[in-house]
Amino acid sequence: MGTPVGIDRTTIDLNSDVGESFGMYTLGDDAAIISSVSSVNVAGGFHAGDPSTIRATCAAAAAAGVTVGAHPGYRDLAGFGRRFIDMEPAELSNDVIYQIGAVQALARAAGTSVRYVKPHGALYNAIAHHPVQAQAVLDAILTVDPTLPLMTLPGSEVGRLARASGLRTVAEAFADRAYNADGSLVSRTRPGAVLHSVSAVTDQVLRLVLEGQVVAIDGTVIDMPVESICLHGDTPDAVTLAAAIRFALVGAGVTIQSFV
Amino acid sequence: MGTPVGIDRTTIDLNSDVGESFGMYTLGDDAAIISSVSSVNVAGGFHAGDPSTIRATCAAAAAAGVTVGAHPGYRDLAGFGRRFIDMEPAELSNDVIYQIGAVQALARAAGTSVRYVKPHGALYNAIAHHPVQAQAVLDAILTVDPTLPLMTLPGSEVGRLARASGLRTVAEAFADRAYNADGSLVSRTRPGAVLHSVSAVTDQVLRLVLEGQVVAIDGTVIDMPVESICLHGDTPDAVTLAAAIRFALVGAGVTIQSFV
Amino acid sequence: MGTPVGIDRTTIDLNSDVGESFGMYTLGDDAAIISSVSSVNVAGGFHAGDPSTIRATCAAAAAAGVTVGAHPGYRDLAGFGRRFIDMEPAELSNDVIYQIGAVQALARAAGTSVRYVKPHGALYNAIAHHPVQAQAVLDAILTVDPTLPLMTLPGSEVGRLARASGLRTVAEAFADRAYNADGSLVSRTRPGAVLHSVSAVTDQVLRLVLEGQVVAIDGTVIDMPVESICLHGDTPDAVTLAAAIRFALVGAGVTIQSFV
Amino acid sequence: MGTPVGIDRTTIDLNSDVGESFGMYTLGDDAAIISSVSSVNVAGGFHAGDPSTIRATCAAAAAAGVTVGAHPGYRDLAGFGRRFIDMEPAELSNDVIYQIGAVQALARAAGTSVRYVKPHGALYNAIAHHPVQAQAVLDAILTVDPTLPLMTLPGSEVGRLARASGLRTVAEAFADRAYNADGSLVSRTRPGAVLHSVSAVTDQVLRLVLEGQVVAIDGTVIDMPVESICLHGDTPDAVTLAAAIRFALVGAGVTIQSFV
Repeated sequence: MGTPVGIDRTTIDLNSDVGESFGMYTLGDDAAIISSVSSVNVAGGFHAGDPSTIRATCAAAAAAGVTVGAHPGYRDLAGFGRRFIDMEPAELSNDVIYQIGAVQALARAAGTSVRYVKPHGALYNAIAHHPVQAQAVLDAILTVDPTLPLMTLPGSEVGRLARASGLRTVAEAFADRAYNADGSLVSRTRPGAVLHSVSAVTDQVLRLVLEGQVVAIDGTVIDMPVESICLHGDTPDAVTLAAAIRFALVGAGVTIQSFV
Repeated sequence: MGTPVGIDRTTIDLNSDVGESFGMYTLGDDAAIISSVSSVNVAGGFHAGDPSTIRATCAAAAAAGVTVGAHPGYRDLAGFGRRFIDMEPAELSNDVIYQIGAVQALARAAGTSVRYVKPHGALYNAIAHHPVQAQAVLDAILTVDPTLPLMTLPGSEVGRLARASGLRTVAEAFADRAYNADGSLVSRTRPGAVLHSVSAVTDQVLRLVLEGQVVAIDGTVIDMPVESICLHGDTPDAVTLAAAIRFALVGAGVTIQSFV
Repeated sequence: MGTPVGIDRTTIDLNSDVGESFGMYTLGDDAAIISSVSSVNVAGGFHAGDPSTIRATCAAAAAAGVTVGAHPGYRDLAGFGRRFIDMEPAELSNDVIYQIGAVQALARAAGTSVRYVKPHGALYNAIAHHPVQAQAVLDAILTVDPTLPLMTLPGSEVGRLARASGLRTVAEAFADRAYNADGSLVSRTRPGAVLHSVSAVTDQVLRLVLEGQVVAIDGTVIDMPVESICLHGDTPDAVTLAAAIRFALVGAGVTIQSFV
Repeated sequence: MGTPVGIDRTTIDLNSDVGESFGMYTLGDDAAIISSVSSVNVAGGFHAGDPSTIRATCAAAAAAGVTVGAHPGYRDLAGFGRRFIDMEPAELSNDVIYQIGAVQALARAAGTSVRYVKPHGALYNAIAHHPVQAQAVLDAILTVDPTLPLMTLPGSEVGRLARASGLRTVAEAFADRAYNADGSLVSRTRPGAVLHSVSAVTDQVLRLVLEGQVVAIDGTVIDMPVESICLHGDTPDAVTLAAAIRFALVGAGVTIQSFV
């Protein structure tokens, strides 16, 4: 894990993917999400996000005091970056640099800056276990700015490689996803993969923040010390769920704030 | 014009468009061109140029001591950015910021940096007379970095607006294009628009550099003080022509060097 | 106009743009729209519409007994085909053939077929007055299948050229757009350009169908014999409006049916 | 194999990929290739090929009496369709239908028609062993026209599934690729994967055509009855090699002609 043994139980970051609209196409209620979280992962234009959307999203984040991260993905607008692409690492690295640079310029135009990197979708999943693509993403971040933390899945290959390169990692858990006993996510193709009830979600979030633990789908209690909780912004009840999570955390005396 | 009355007749910048390959598609002999010029306009990915091409081109420019400029275009890979797109100025501005930011990041990855901006193709032509798109491009540059000069056509609308905004402009002439008596380019659809003989091209370049003048297609001699001469990189004899121009300039005691 | 002097006041076609979702991006409530109209203009993939969306939309149209038209646009997903592109006519023609062919194959896969062509957005507007692009679109239709009618604005350049080529035209009016006294649409940038009240829309539709007339924004009554009425599918109240129009027409004894 | 036991040793089809230029980007010398082969695989626009290129290529093939096949690929222009994309089979199937339909329309516009289908690059390789993607491609062909043969690798999964569906397969071998003893291609990442000498290539082609055999990289002689030989069109010496192959075949009394 990228977090110290004695995790901080009094603060937590909430993050969500935003800036994923494209031209006429609107995706998610970014304004509502930005008002609920402390960090936003802003799409880089390859899987989603046009320049005007990216800038407007960064401006909204800046106005709300929310931290901006770059959210690069595979060049696959038709697949929303959710399809693994078996590409050359040097090309992947340059695609990631390109997207981070573009978001940096638009974030600055909006009066803020890119403070971390979180890869998107199939790229996020690939680098959890694919060492070559993982290193390609790390090379990109190290090249652009080695002080940018990488947000990632606890226990991932990219996390290990990142820390070996001296890059800070920020472990995150998912508010509404079920976990296997080994700490991996239950595949979306299996029943129970997504938590739908508000109470199940808030229970999982509170346990993650207050105990550094999660209850796996088979009942096993596993350690999962994280610095951030990811909320999905594109589900129908995303905004309601985000509000409930905030309410539960604040009620438990937890401060919601960015990790940077 | 953006140049002082007493132009410098002992030095000149030569610039050319590069970095316009895309994936499997190769365009131009960038290596040869880079060895012939002092500044290169590196494509930003919207009309041409993939991230790996952009980075490799910047690296080659850095190795050769050649200045890098960003070369943003309309989002039109199928048309190579040569088709006017009647787009909203705010969107155009953000598209330009996105591309400049992306090239900046890849240029830094290659050990160099973006030192100026030159819009591409139909965008270059549009902003010579379209005040709304011109201002959109200027807003982009002013937002990213107001110290970046804009390379442009002498007498253009964007040049006037740029200087009014405090942005430095670098006027350029074309080595192989014929001019009308009013200083505009002869349309490519008309005979004589492009100079094909080496002597016609070198004569035009020498007169531009040594006299600050060009002989229009009707024989009129017009003043055209410029700081840079644009060489085309995608014509069959581009490399030969570039070598002849260098040879002529050096023989006339002119130093070829960037304007920054 | 493409319609005979004695227009048919007992039947009318209602058409709407559909199939404009793309990957993760959903646009419009196609299912509801398809249940309200007699013809649907299915996007061809260049301004909107991915292959799976196109096929599913054609299948829904087939199931509802709704006629399918191809709806080609400029290659401009980022601009949703709403930005004029100043392109070569031969390229435009081939882009249109490509899109019609693709929709034909997916329509057949869905158990139906393409029965007419209606260009989209900026292309629709351009060919109303741009003879070169108009002829390019007509050349495409004539090449693919000269029996396919072209749906177009009454009084348009493309309409005149189409009829001169022997191509059938289907004139359409817009249910919710205001008209100038010369029969052109009031620009969206001017107040009153879009009719918002249900009664204004149904009044306009009934007058168009029953009288072959429309009341212009300045009160002038103008002749506008049309074979189809276009309903917008992407406005928030599109479905409500469509239902009200159907109800008004049926109440007036008008049968809603395709023109083919 | 898709060929009868008693293969025809007096005729052979030569095929090559063409129509892969895109906008300003030229790839391969299609005119020269078309004059050397009997069948051409015309790109469908997703991995390469714009509509004007596709049409012009079909017109050149028609003029030369060369058979046209559709050559659909993954939607990956940046990767030239050479990167595996882990996509949903229904989406893949519709992407293939879309591309075949588009090429059909442009082929008809050029006075010819699509007579077979050969998937491109990573898709071609994937369906050789990936049953789900293989079936998706077959579903597309069966939907568009079940009489269209599929050109494929001998011994491939897609070949078995195709024949099980009643689809004709046309087995092909590669003129300049080395084979493993199991009939698979030697990976391009290994030495000796590509035959460079003219004599090695012509020897392999003659043995394939006259004996129905190929000598694997380890010296094993394996049976490989094929109906077509694929020539690469994008290598520097493609045209020279094609001429040498034609010369060798004609000298051996073999007629070069399409399989349809």
